[in-house]
Amino acid sequence: MFAQVAAAIAQCGGSLGDMTLVERTNQRVLREINVDASSTQHAQEIAAAIQAVPEVNVLEVRDRTFALHQGGKIRVQSRISLDRQSDLAMAYTPGVGRISRAIADDPQQVYSLTVKSNMVAIVSDGSAILGLGNLGPEAALPVMEGKAMLFKEFAGIDAFPLCLATQDTEEIIATVKHLAPVFGGVNLEDISAPRCFEIEKRLREELDIPIFHDDQHGTAIVSLAALHNALILVEKALKAVKIVINGAGAAGVAIARLLKQAGAANITLCDSKGILSTQRSDLNPQKQEFAVAASGFLADALKGADIFLGVSVPGVLTPEMVQSMAADPIVLAMANPIPEIQPELVKDKVAVMATGRSDYANQINNVLAFPAIFRGALDCRASAITTNMYLEAASAIASLIEPGDLHSENIIPSVFDPRVVPAVARAVEQAARQDGVARI
Amino acid sequence: MFAQVAAAIAQCGGSLGDMTLVERTNQRVLREINVDASSTQHAQEIAAAIQAVPEVNVLEVRDRTFALHQGGKIRVQSRISLDRQSDLAMAYTPGVGRISRAIADDPQQVYSLTVKSNMVAIVSDGSAILGLGNLGPEAALPVMEGKAMLFKEFAGIDAFPLCLATQDTEEIIATVKHLAPVFGGVNLEDISAPRCFEIEKRLREELDIPIFHDDQHGTAIVSLAALHNALILVEKALKAVKIVINGAGAAGVAIARLLKQAGAANITLCDSKGILSTQRSDLNPQKQEFAVAASGFLADALKGADIFLGVSVPGVLTPEMVQSMAADPIVLAMANPIPEIQPELVKDKVAVMATGRSDYANQINNVLAFPAIFRGALDCRASAITTNMYLEAASAIASLIEPGDLHSENIIPSVFDPRVVPAVARAVEQAARQDGVARI
Repeated sequence: MFAQVAAAIAQCGGSLGDMTLVERTNQRVLREINVDASSTQHAQEIAAAIQAVPEVNVLEVRDRTFALHQGGKIRVQSRISLDRQSDLAMAYTPGVGRISRAIADDPQQVYSLTVKSNMVAIVSDGSAILGLGNLGPEAALPVMEGKAMLFKEFAGIDAFPLCLATQDTEEIIATVKHLAPVFGGVNLEDISAPRCFEIEKRLREELDIPIFHDDQHGTAIVSLAALHNALILVEKALKAVKIVINGAGAAGVAIARLLKQAGAANITLCDSKGILSTQRSDLNPQKQEFAVAASGFLADALKGADIFLGVSVPGVLTPEMVQSMAADPIVLAMANPIPEIQPELVKDKVAVMATGRSDYANQINNVLAFPAIFRGALDCRASAITTNMYLEAASAIASLIEPGDLHSENIIPSVFDPRVVPAVARAVEQAARQDGVARI
Repeated sequence: MFAQVAAAIAQCGGSLGDMTLVERTNQRVLREINVDASSTQHAQEIAAAIQAVPEVNVLEVRDRTFALHQGGKIRVQSRISLDRQSDLAMAYTPGVGRISRAIADDPQQVYSLTVKSNMVAIVSDGSAILGLGNLGPEAALPVMEGKAMLFKEFAGIDAFPLCLATQDTEEIIATVKHLAPVFGGVNLEDISAPRCFEIEKRLREELDIPIFHDDQHGTAIVSLAALHNALILVEKALKAVKIVINGAGAAGVAIARLLKQAGAANITLCDSKGILSTQRSDLNPQKQEFAVAASGFLADALKGADIFLGVSVPGVLTPEMVQSMAADPIVLAMANPIPEIQPELVKDKVAVMATGRSDYANQINNVLAFPAIFRGALDCRASAITTNMYLEAASAIASLIEPGDLHSENIIPSVFDPRVVPAVARAVEQAARQDGVARI
């Protein structure tokens, strides 16, 4: 009987996972079956196909992702239990009064006597949630909870999601400034461009804790790490290559800035209207920063280019465009969840291909950067995050691929590589010390 | 040898606690000894007295309260581990995108698919920390972390401390409103009067989640609970007694308001300048609410009074004042950590005495109220907290003392009584349903 069920699942393209035998009697067998589907509709099709097998009954269809989210994904825990009056007297009144007094007398003590030294705020206004757009702060919360999990699981950092019911630049800045006493750092997330630039800039100026907009710098750091290794493979130098970035939002601008700092000299940015050209009158200040004399569309920009970096939308890169690039082209197609070009379309035409997906080789994933960046910054109580800290983080990520292991399908470590966080955090901390922003 | 050490500790008035034998050789015995001291100075005196015992060496003196606070008292934990790509794909991208979309389509889903339904913000500006005054947001943080522990340990509620770097009423209101999406309720804490009144009132009007200023209502609820039982003992009725409240800040005003709602008809408030009299021109609107024709000082107000409630400063109530009260006086001297009168001074002159301290009978402790109030409010997704919810909470706390167990030194349950939270939460939830503020 189960063979027929398995066949029905396979026929629909479902992928069979764990299976539990719940009950077996003379009359019936009850099983719980996990099946991976590619969409909600696909899951319904699979369930219908199973139901259609004679003598099989589908009793319940449960969506594991929804089940996992019930009640949220994080918890606030006490570090010590409160079982007796003496526990209360130390952790709360009257004992805590002496701790408050000590901090009032020496404000730096807030770092040792409270959660501040290991606590990061994850701040979003829900204006640019993943690839979904402006869905507001409530819809952003599950993403920020997920981010808090990543901080904890990968770097041991306590992080708390703060989704703000305002999309006004000044109100966001004011709110984060008011919240700063509790936090050792602020991770800005899913805030749309160009407001994200002003918000980050102002908070950097006005607060003395690290401010990091992950959509900008996380993506930029991991992209640079991937390029370090891809360029070794094709034997080209960053300062000599022609780079085209498609997408001129938060990530595109940040990638361009970081590549420039790393030594890249020939960078062309495109947005949905084409090349950021000095002839265009519709560019915001961040786009103007990268405007070039040339004009035209993405296809024009790509002719003879060595590197394509996409942080834009699915399918905008065609095989023809790739063929127009220089020899041994490098393509980082990072649109999520569907890349600028399906890797199989240009399998034999590129030297190196990377995407944001986990089901292809070379996943460009911010998880390689942000937990370790904050780990390093918090450990040395950095007052800010500098460009050198970004650059050193990228080099540290790239260097985890040993020369002997480097090949076109292995330019970047896995997010589950346990060496990533310690190595990158130490590189970040060292750069902080060199830049004079470390406070311990 | 240890007998001499114990004697030295006892002679200084130290209280010997746990003791650990660390090492015993022919030459020496190494012990770790816990001693309760009444102050930092007292601890130093005890250490010096031990050091003075011949052949004894004090190797290290550690302050347990400071040691316990190192690194803070709470942690943010993931509810699920992220060990595999499939975990990431469900808890973070791409799976979380479906959760965000579901919330955007139906905003009420934020209650089931995120932490919101069990998450409380503990908000302070550090302007009135315990009895210490205006020490600012960093110094408030250890107190708010302690509060978060209490929420978790007593009622299973996730609570997060938010200490704000502003003491401007409008800025605090705006900040809390911006933060509201993540939280199922807001506990305001240690915000000085009269700003606390306006902040609470406005947030109640402008948000659809429970707002509760614990310094006001927590104290008022537990005081009312204590009075319920104290009045049974002296066989007087709340509506007939003369009540004097000393202290007209957040707690004093809130107690007066709640006692009035509960039926009290004769209430006189005093502040540091004496009776709140209609003849005074220095009263803020909250004080004016309780201004009476009479004038004079606390001693004048207390003549013939049945009940003294103190939420003021140490030592202001004298034995003579207590003697001027009506027969069977009830004294709730709740100044912390030193009450308005030392209980032993009027041991034989009062019918019932209560304080805020754990080392005397009848401790009036907010922990009896706030965890259960929020438990009840969150469980029924209350849109607000009503006066009936306060009144029912007070009755539920009082009713946990069985008639047969009620006596002058047992008018209120212990904070460690496991019946408190479930009983009070259910009473609060029922009142919410009656008042039409429950949403599930």
